[in-house]
Amino acid sequence: MLDMLFTKLEASYEDMVSIRRYLHQHPELSFQEYETAKYIQSFYEKLNIEVRGSVGGNGVVARVYGSKPGKTVALRADFDALPIQDEKDVPYKSLVPGVMHACGHDGHTATLLLLAKALNELKDQLKGTYVFIHQHAEEYAPGGAAAMIKDGCLDGVDVIFGTHLWASEPTGTIQYRTGPIMAAADRFEIEIQGKGGHGAEPHKTKDAIVTASQLVANLQQIVSRRVNPVEAAVVTVASFTAQNAFNVIADKAKLVGTVRTFNEEIRTFIEEEIDRVIHGTCYSSDSTYIYDFVRGYPAVVNHEKETEFLIGCAKHVAEVKTITETKMHMGGEDFAFYLQNVPGTFFFTGAKPLGNAGGYPHHHPKFDIDEKAMLIAAKTLGTAAIKIHS
Amino acid sequence: MLDMLFTKLEASYEDMVSIRRYLHQHPELSFQEYETAKYIQSFYEKLNIEVRGSVGGNGVVARVYGSKPGKTVALRADFDALPIQDEKDVPYKSLVPGVMHACGHDGHTATLLLLAKALNELKDQLKGTYVFIHQHAEEYAPGGAAAMIKDGCLDGVDVIFGTHLWASEPTGTIQYRTGPIMAAADRFEIEIQGKGGHGAEPHKTKDAIVTASQLVANLQQIVSRRVNPVEAAVVTVASFTAQNAFNVIADKAKLVGTVRTFNEEIRTFIEEEIDRVIHGTCYSSDSTYIYDFVRGYPAVVNHEKETEFLIGCAKHVAEVKTITETKMHMGGEDFAFYLQNVPGTFFFTGAKPLGNAGGYPHHHPKFDIDEKAMLIAAKTLGTAAIKIHS
Amino acid sequence: MLDMLFTKLEASYEDMVSIRRYLHQHPELSFQEYETAKYIQSFYEKLNIEVRGSVGGNGVVARVYGSKPGKTVALRADFDALPIQDEKDVPYKSLVPGVMHACGHDGHTATLLLLAKALNELKDQLKGTYVFIHQHAEEYAPGGAAAMIKDGCLDGVDVIFGTHLWASEPTGTIQYRTGPIMAAADRFEIEIQGKGGHGAEPHKTKDAIVTASQLVANLQQIVSRRVNPVEAAVVTVASFTAQNAFNVIADKAKLVGTVRTFNEEIRTFIEEEIDRVIHGTCYSSDSTYIYDFVRGYPAVVNHEKETEFLIGCAKHVAEVKTITETKMHMGGEDFAFYLQNVPGTFFFTGAKPLGNAGGYPHHHPKFDIDEKAMLIAAKTLGTAAIKIHS
Amino acid sequence: MLDMLFTKLEASYEDMVSIRRYLHQHPELSFQEYETAKYIQSFYEKLNIEVRGSVGGNGVVARVYGSKPGKTVALRADFDALPIQDEKDVPYKSLVPGVMHACGHDGHTATLLLLAKALNELKDQLKGTYVFIHQHAEEYAPGGAAAMIKDGCLDGVDVIFGTHLWASEPTGTIQYRTGPIMAAADRFEIEIQGKGGHGAEPHKTKDAIVTASQLVANLQQIVSRRVNPVEAAVVTVASFTAQNAFNVIADKAKLVGTVRTFNEEIRTFIEEEIDRVIHGTCYSSDSTYIYDFVRGYPAVVNHEKETEFLIGCAKHVAEVKTITETKMHMGGEDFAFYLQNVPGTFFFTGAKPLGNAGGYPHHHPKFDIDEKAMLIAAKTLGTAAIKIHS
Repeated sequence: MLDMLFTKLEASYEDMVSIRRYLHQHPELSFQEYETAKYIQSFYEKLNIEVRGSVGGNGVVARVYGSKPGKTVALRADFDALPIQDEKDVPYKSLVPGVMHACGHDGHTATLLLLAKALNELKDQLKGTYVFIHQHAEEYAPGGAAAMIKDGCLDGVDVIFGTHLWASEPTGTIQYRTGPIMAAADRFEIEIQGKGGHGAEPHKTKDAIVTASQLVANLQQIVSRRVNPVEAAVVTVASFTAQNAFNVIADKAKLVGTVRTFNEEIRTFIEEEIDRVIHGTCYSSDSTYIYDFVRGYPAVVNHEKETEFLIGCAKHVAEVKTITETKMHMGGEDFAFYLQNVPGTFFFTGAKPLGNAGGYPHHHPKFDIDEKAMLIAAKTLGTAAIKIHS
Repeated sequence: MLDMLFTKLEASYEDMVSIRRYLHQHPELSFQEYETAKYIQSFYEKLNIEVRGSVGGNGVVARVYGSKPGKTVALRADFDALPIQDEKDVPYKSLVPGVMHACGHDGHTATLLLLAKALNELKDQLKGTYVFIHQHAEEYAPGGAAAMIKDGCLDGVDVIFGTHLWASEPTGTIQYRTGPIMAAADRFEIEIQGKGGHGAEPHKTKDAIVTASQLVANLQQIVSRRVNPVEAAVVTVASFTAQNAFNVIADKAKLVGTVRTFNEEIRTFIEEEIDRVIHGTCYSSDSTYIYDFVRGYPAVVNHEKETEFLIGCAKHVAEVKTITETKMHMGGEDFAFYLQNVPGTFFFTGAKPLGNAGGYPHHHPKFDIDEKAMLIAAKTLGTAAIKIHS
Repeated sequence: MLDMLFTKLEASYEDMVSIRRYLHQHPELSFQEYETAKYIQSFYEKLNIEVRGSVGGNGVVARVYGSKPGKTVALRADFDALPIQDEKDVPYKSLVPGVMHACGHDGHTATLLLLAKALNELKDQLKGTYVFIHQHAEEYAPGGAAAMIKDGCLDGVDVIFGTHLWASEPTGTIQYRTGPIMAAADRFEIEIQGKGGHGAEPHKTKDAIVTASQLVANLQQIVSRRVNPVEAAVVTVASFTAQNAFNVIADKAKLVGTVRTFNEEIRTFIEEEIDRVIHGTCYSSDSTYIYDFVRGYPAVVNHEKETEFLIGCAKHVAEVKTITETKMHMGGEDFAFYLQNVPGTFFFTGAKPLGNAGGYPHHHPKFDIDEKAMLIAAKTLGTAAIKIHS
Repeated sequence: MLDMLFTKLEASYEDMVSIRRYLHQHPELSFQEYETAKYIQSFYEKLNIEVRGSVGGNGVVARVYGSKPGKTVALRADFDALPIQDEKDVPYKSLVPGVMHACGHDGHTATLLLLAKALNELKDQLKGTYVFIHQHAEEYAPGGAAAMIKDGCLDGVDVIFGTHLWASEPTGTIQYRTGPIMAAADRFEIEIQGKGGHGAEPHKTKDAIVTASQLVANLQQIVSRRVNPVEAAVVTVASFTAQNAFNVIADKAKLVGTVRTFNEEIRTFIEEEIDRVIHGTCYSSDSTYIYDFVRGYPAVVNHEKETEFLIGCAKHVAEVKTITETKMHMGGEDFAFYLQNVPGTFFFTGAKPLGNAGGYPHHHPKFDIDEKAMLIAAKTLGTAAIKIHS
C-alpha cells in the first residue's frame, strides 16, 4: 500500500512543484487569503473530493473516505504568507509587492494537495477517513486554527499530524520531539505612569524612566531566579519608549515585550510574576501602571505515542536519512490548538536549499526551500495516515 | 538724585505697561526677534540715544553718557519669547499663534527701556556711562549673550546688573544670592549599540534595552555616591527610545538627558563619570556606544561685593518689602557669560500676579506677571546704576 | 540466567539489609572511609573474589571473571557519608555523632556487594568480566572517581552502570535520561576592592557595597539573556559579606557562589561572562577585583545507546512498575568522570519509604530509604550486566 | 571692657595650656567622665563660683552673675574623649591606654574654664548672667546635651554660643554658617527575610541576596531623584551581611547604614522613603522585612541674627585673620539640641598645628591642636558674651 502511495506521490512531484510555485507567486497575508482558499477548494472540487470552504474564516477542509472502517486522521497545512518583500532572483518570485511566502506555507499546501489526491485515488483500499485541513492565518495571532476547530474541522478526528518544512536542516532530515516542541508566545504591554516635570527638579517628579529601567532590570530575575532552571522560559522587553525633550523628566514610559514558555503552569506563573515585579517596582517610586498580558498561541505539545509512531513511519521513507530529536523551538505555532483537542504530533521536515548559498533563515527576504523536501513530507505524512490503521 | 529718578520712573509707568503689552502681543522666537529688535532700536533713536543694532545677532546696545567721569555700568534685559500657545484671557494676549512671552522678557525689555529714558533725562547730573544691553535669544542655547560679548557689548564695562521678574514670589520681594545662583545646564546623548534579534532568542543578541536600563540605574550613583553631598547636582535621563515590535530584541537604544551643576569642577567630573559608567555598563554586555556631552550655559555665579551692594540698593526702594537670599535655582541663564567677564550680580524681582489665581509658573500657557514689579525692577536697577559711583 | 540471578538476589535480601544497616550505624566522612573500605575488601576476600584496595585513595575494586569471552562491564557504588547528625528513631541509627549515611550510599554498597556475590556464584555460566567499583568520597569535591580512574579502575572496561537510590520517588520506579542528567557544579569567589571612608562622605570613597550589589543584579542577566533558553543554567550568589560599622563606607565586599550547567560550552561561557560582568561593573565604579572560578564535578552525561539498553533491562524486573524520563537534576555527581571515559548510564531507583511520613529529602537528618529498593537496584544492574553480552 | 578681658585671658594662657594637657593625659570615655567632671567642678569651687555637678549625668554647670541686669548667655564646652590609642610622641600624651582626646574637647574645656575665671573677675562691671555648660558625652548618641537640658542647664538662658577647635583650618580662622552647619546623623537597620534553599534550585527560594542587592541599588534614587538637589543628604548602606556556604541560597540578608540630612522635613521624608523602597523591593520578590530607623542627633542649625552677631564679635579679636562661611559638615554634634531651645550659633575655630606635619584629621591616633587657638576661642566667645548686652 505504501509502495503504491509513494509511486503516486513521485509521479505527482512535478505538479507539486508547479502548484507550490504558483502559490509562491501569489501570496496573501494572514486573514486575507481569499484567492488561495478558492484555489485550494477548486482543486478538490475538480477531483470530486468532498470539500468545505470558509471554515472558521478562510479555512478549507476536505475529506476522503476509505472503503473500510477505521480511524479518522487529520493532516494539516497552513497557507498564509508574510508582509515581506521577496528579494529572490528566481522565475517564481512573488508577484505581490511586499508580500511573500517566506515561511514555506506554499510548500505545505502543495504537499497536502497532492497527498490528498493520491490518497483519494487509493481510497478503495484504505481504512478510515482522511481529513485535509488547509488552515489560513498561522502567522498572525489569534490565528486560524482555533476558529477552524470551533467551526468543526476536528469533528470526529482521532489523530492529527502536521509538519513544517525547515530550511535550516538538510533535506532528508526529520526532526521530532515528544512533549513541548514549540513555545507559547505571549505579548505584554506595561505603561508606567510617573509624574513629569522639569529635568532640573527631580524631587517634584516621579521619574518614569528610572522606574521603568529598574523594572527591566528586575524582570530579569523571573527567568534567572524564579523559574525552574530545567524549564525553558524567556521574558523579553522588546520596546521601551519615553521620548522627551532633553530637559524634562518623563511622565510615562511604555514597555512592550514577549514571554515564551512551554507549559501552562509556568506561563501563568510568569504572567503573575511580571505583575508582582511591576507592582513592587512602582510602589517603590510611588508610581502607577497598566499591565496587559495577551495570550498568543499556547505551546505545541506533542503526544508521546503519536510521536513515536511518527518516528516509525519516517523510517519507511527511503529519502529520510536522519531522524533526530530537535531541541525545543522558542517560536510559536497554532498547531498547538489541534493538539489540545486530539492526539498527534508536529514535526520538522528538513528543506535546506542546496548550492553554495545554503539557504536563508525563515522570514528572510531571500528565503527559499529545497522543493524535494515536499515529496519527503508527503511520504511521511502519507505513511502516518495509512499506518495509523495497522 | 534717586528721588528724581524714582519720580520719573513712576511717571513713565503707564508707558512701561503699554510697551510691555505691545511686546506681549507681538512675541518672537529666539534668534528670530527681528521686529522686536527694530522696535527697541527705534525707541532709542527717537530719543536720540546712541544705539547699535545687530549686535552678535539680533542684540541691541544703547549708551547714555553722564556728564562726569565714572564707571561704566551695564544693565541687561533679554527679549525673546517661547514656542508656547498663549491661553490667557486678557486683551494683551499674544497675537502670534504658538508663540508667547511666557517668561517675562517683555517686562524686562519695557523696564529697561523706560529706565534708560529716565537716566538719559538725568544724564547731566550723572557720573559715568550707562550701557543698556538688550539681549536676544536667552531661551535657546547657545544663546545671545556669548555672541553679543564677542561683538563688544561689554567693552569698557566695569560692572553689570540684571534681574528676572519672578512670578512665583510676591511683588515687593527681591531675592539675591552670592556665588552660584543658577545652574550650568548641559545636554547629553547616549546611543547604545547592542545586537538585535528575535525576542525568543536572547542568547543570540546583545539586548540594548537591558543595557540601557542598567545604565539609567547606574547613572543614579553619580549624584548619590560620587558628588560631594553638600554640592548640588542633577543627572537626568529625560528620554529613552528603543521602539520595536513585541517579538524582537532591541538593536539599539537612545538616551538623552541633562546635567545641572554649579561649579566647573563638578561639571567636568560628571561629564567624565557618565562616560565611565557607560563604558563599564557596555563592557558588561559587550555592547558599544556613542556619547556626546554638549555644554550649555555655565552656572550664573554672582560676585560677592556686587551682590552685597545690590542688597543695599534694594533697601532704597520703598516698594521692596522683603529682601531674602534665594536657594540656588537648577535652571540656566546665559547671564552667566557676562559674569565670567565682568563683576556683577543677577537677582530676582518678585512679580506674582495678585488675585485668587496667584499666578502660573514660568513657561506655562497662562503665565502672566504683576506689572507693578516692572517699576520695582527699574528702581532697583536704577539705584544700582547711580549708586555704583558713590 | 536472569531467573537464576533474581532468585539468588532475593535469597540474599536479608544479608543486604543487614549489611546496609551495619554500614548505616558506622558511617565515615568523605576521604576518611578507612573502616568501610576494609569492610568491603574483607567481604570480597572471604568469597575469594579478586579485590584491590586503596584504589585512588580509599577505593576498592573487585573483579569477577565469566567463563566465556565478553565485554568488561563495570558497576559502581559510592560509600562515603555526610557530616549530619542522625535524628532518626530506628535501631540501626548512626552510632557516630554528627556523621550519617543521609544519602543512601550505605544502600548502594550493600546492593553491589550482594550483586557481586550472586554474579560470582554464576560466573561459570557468564560471559565477560564484571568490575565492582566501590568508590569513596562522592560527596566532597574533588571526589574519589577521578583518582580511582587515574589508578586504573576503568582499565579495560567497556561500559559502566550506576544508580542512585532516590527517596523522593516511590519504590518500583526507575528514572532514566539520555544526555545530561546531573549538573556540573562549580564554585566562584569574587572580591570587590573599592575604597572605604566615612559614611557621610561618599564622594571620597568607592562604595564596595554599591558596586557588589549592582554586580549581583547584573549577574542575573547571564541566565536571563545570554544562555540559550532551552539550556539549563544557574548562577547563584550564595554569600555576600561586607560587615562594617553603621557610619562607614565599605572598603571591600566578598561574594561567593555556584554555577550549574549541563554542557562544557555553556560552563566555560558562563565562567567567562561572569568575568566580563565583574570587569564592566568594577570599571563603572573605578574599583578592582579578584575573581576565582573553581571547577567541581562536570555534568553527568548519559550515553544514548546504553540508556536505551538500560530501559530495556528495567522492563525485565517485575518489581519495576514505572519507567520514566527524569528531568535534569541541578545537583552534581562524580559519576560524571566515568562517563567521560567509557559509555554507560546513571539512573535513579525509587526508594521512597512507605508509611505516613513518606520520607525526608536527601541530606536531611531524618533521611531513610525503603530497603526493598536495594533489591530492585541489584536486579536492574544485574540484568544490565548480563544482558550487555547478548 | 574687652581689653580687660583679653588681657586677663592672655595672662591665663599658660594655665589654659597646662589644664588642657592635664586633661589630655587623663581622657575618659563618653558617659564615664567621672574624674573630669570632678576636676571641672573643683576648679569652680576653688574660685567660689556657683557650680552644680551631675547635671543630666556627668554634666557640670557654673554661673557668674554680673552686677547689672542683662541677658543670660550660655557658653558650652564638651569634655568626653574617644576610644582611640594615642600615638603621638609628646610629653602630654594620653596616660590611658586606648582612650584619647582626639577631637579637641580637652581644649574646649580649658578654654571655657579660663574664660569663666576671667569673666568672674570682671563681674562687677558686667551686665547679665553667664552660664558655663560643661557637657559630657558628645561623642556617643544619645549624647549629654539632651539630658543636661532636661536637667535645667538652659533654664533662663537667652542665647548660647559654642565652638569647635578645628584642626584642618589654620589658626586665626573663624568659620561660621547661618542655618544648618552640621548634619543630623541617623542609623538604620534592615533585615530582608527571603526563603533559603539549595544554590541549584532558585525557583524554590526567595533569594535574599538578590533582593537586598536590588534594594541597595534602589536606595540610591532617594538622593539622586527624590531629594531637592540643592539640599544635602546622604543615604549610605555601610554593612551588608549574608554569609553562607557556596551552594545555598541566602535565607536572609542584613543591611545597616546611616542617613545624613540638614532639615527635619527631609530627614523624616528619607526615613519614610527608605521604608517605601524596601516595601516595594520586597514585594517584588515576595519577601518580608524588618526596618528600624534610629534617630541620632538632629542637625545643628545656627540662628541668623546670632551668627551675624558672632561674625561681628570675631572682628574684635586681633588674632582672627580670616572669617569665612564654611560649607555644611556631614558630621553630627549634639549642640543641635541647645539650638532647638534657645537662639545661638556654633562656629569653628581654626586650630591647625604648625610645623611640617600640618596636622592630622580629627579622630586620628596622632591628632593634636595648635594650643594658641584656645586663646582665640576664649576671646571670641568672651567677646560674644559681653557684647550681647550692648
